[in-house]
Amino acid sequence: MKKNYLTEVEIIKRKNERIETKKDVVAVEYPLTIILNDKELITLLCTPNNMEFLALGFLRSEGIIRKKEDILSVKHDTVKDRVIIETVDKNSLTEKLYGKRTLTSGCGKGTVFFNVLDSLLSKKLTHRVAISPENVFDLMRELQRKGEIFKMTGGVHSAALCNGRGILIFNEDIGRHNALDKILGEALMSEVGLEDKVIVTSGRVSSEILLKAVKLKIAVIISRSAPTSLSVELAEKLGVTLIGFVRGRGMNIYSHSWRLEQD
Amino acid sequence: MKKNYLTEVEIIKRKNERIETKKDVVAVEYPLTIILNDKELITLLCTPNNMEFLALGFLRSEGIIRKKEDILSVKHDTVKDRVIIETVDKNSLTEKLYGKRTLTSGCGKGTVFFNVLDSLLSKKLTHRVAISPENVFDLMRELQRKGEIFKMTGGVHSAALCNGRGILIFNEDIGRHNALDKILGEALMSEVGLEDKVIVTSGRVSSEILLKAVKLKIAVIISRSAPTSLSVELAEKLGVTLIGFVRGRGMNIYSHSWRLEQD
Repeated sequence: MKKNYLTEVEIIKRKNERIETKKDVVAVEYPLTIILNDKELITLLCTPNNMEFLALGFLRSEGIIRKKEDILSVKHDTVKDRVIIETVDKNSLTEKLYGKRTLTSGCGKGTVFFNVLDSLLSKKLTHRVAISPENVFDLMRELQRKGEIFKMTGGVHSAALCNGRGILIFNEDIGRHNALDKILGEALMSEVGLEDKVIVTSGRVSSEILLKAVKLKIAVIISRSAPTSLSVELAEKLGVTLIGFVRGRGMNIYSHSWRLEQD
Repeated sequence: MKKNYLTEVEIIKRKNERIETKKDVVAVEYPLTIILNDKELITLLCTPNNMEFLALGFLRSEGIIRKKEDILSVKHDTVKDRVIIETVDKNSLTEKLYGKRTLTSGCGKGTVFFNVLDSLLSKKLTHRVAISPENVFDLMRELQRKGEIFKMTGGVHSAALCNGRGILIFNEDIGRHNALDKILGEALMSEVGLEDKVIVTSGRVSSEILLKAVKLKIAVIISRSAPTSLSVELAEKLGVTLIGFVRGRGMNIYSHSWRLEQD
């Protein structure tokens, strides 16, 4: 195999009474360690592509970096499976934040710092985003079309940053949090603004997926799957348009449907 | 709603050009804090049923408890959303273990301590388990039939502890790790032995799901979904029969197929 995020394994395939030994493709699961300012921050199990974006997106989601200028250097050490990041401000709150950690239901690393919630509640998102119901259906179709690793393995999630007209940044990962962090890291490096964008994901929307988006002022989240009660509640309170079960020409709108009614 | 793990929300359902406002059911996402020997261990986001089993299963998966006698008391404080556990041995390795944590790709809390791997590699599972290919198909059908929360919400995973003839313990959770921990906690309290059992799950099998099972000497893992490369590799090395994509009368056997060939 040419791609390092796919690997061939020999399987026994059984279908009714027919049994055959054949080659099959599975998604690689890779332990990536993030080194932040010479200290080991975390090890993520991920799909090994766009790993710099994953590491940067993780730091961005956790509030450790906010803009491209916060980063001094990013190195990917492929021998030791790690991404080494140096930031301008080495005196960050990292240690303090990592003292209290909430592990989550989510596919993915899913760390949430509950203390962010209070500050978010005072900044409910109210801005319009140019998107119509037709756009929602089109974006989900495009997401599925682009999911190359999923087509090969059935074992990954995809996430995309979009405007109403199409996908701008797309990534896949065995963890749905990682897929989202990859697009957030890539957007950071490309200096793509987020406020007028929407997120489209194959995965379920739990509270920490919702919070990841809303912390970066992304006001529309579109999923092929289900939301949880907490994500619906937070979406309502924080001003997020949350759309789930987008399949074919059907969708459920859980909150702030006014953003879809502008056409 | 009678069940505290389901909640009704008002949604706008759009199907083609038809738009209706209706009630829909979503899975509750609930932050459960585990207090171990008067210290806050972790907060899990979970489906709020069988939470004592979840907490106990989590401790069991992490190697903090091994048998029912290790537990002095379990209390569920529903006001403060926490399960309070006291163990006989209060001088455990908990703190040390929690210093280095790998967060994972998985739906679920997914903490794995890599140091367990070395010891596991020296104890490859070699025991037979009474299960036939027909059993595999039947167990997956039974798993899907029992998934009440999934049928209502589409937003949870299910896991079951089975023998070849049927499901013994079944649980659902918004996190696939949590679903598995719930059955492991329930098995602990019911003193159900694990070595002759199999695990059936709706979710993908990443390395930490595989390690959870193998640490408890469960030698057969059956999933409706995909495994990762690392889980296939570990299954091969550790002597686990790993079966994925069980759908209808089809399945992929990734490792140690000999356990299915005894009939």
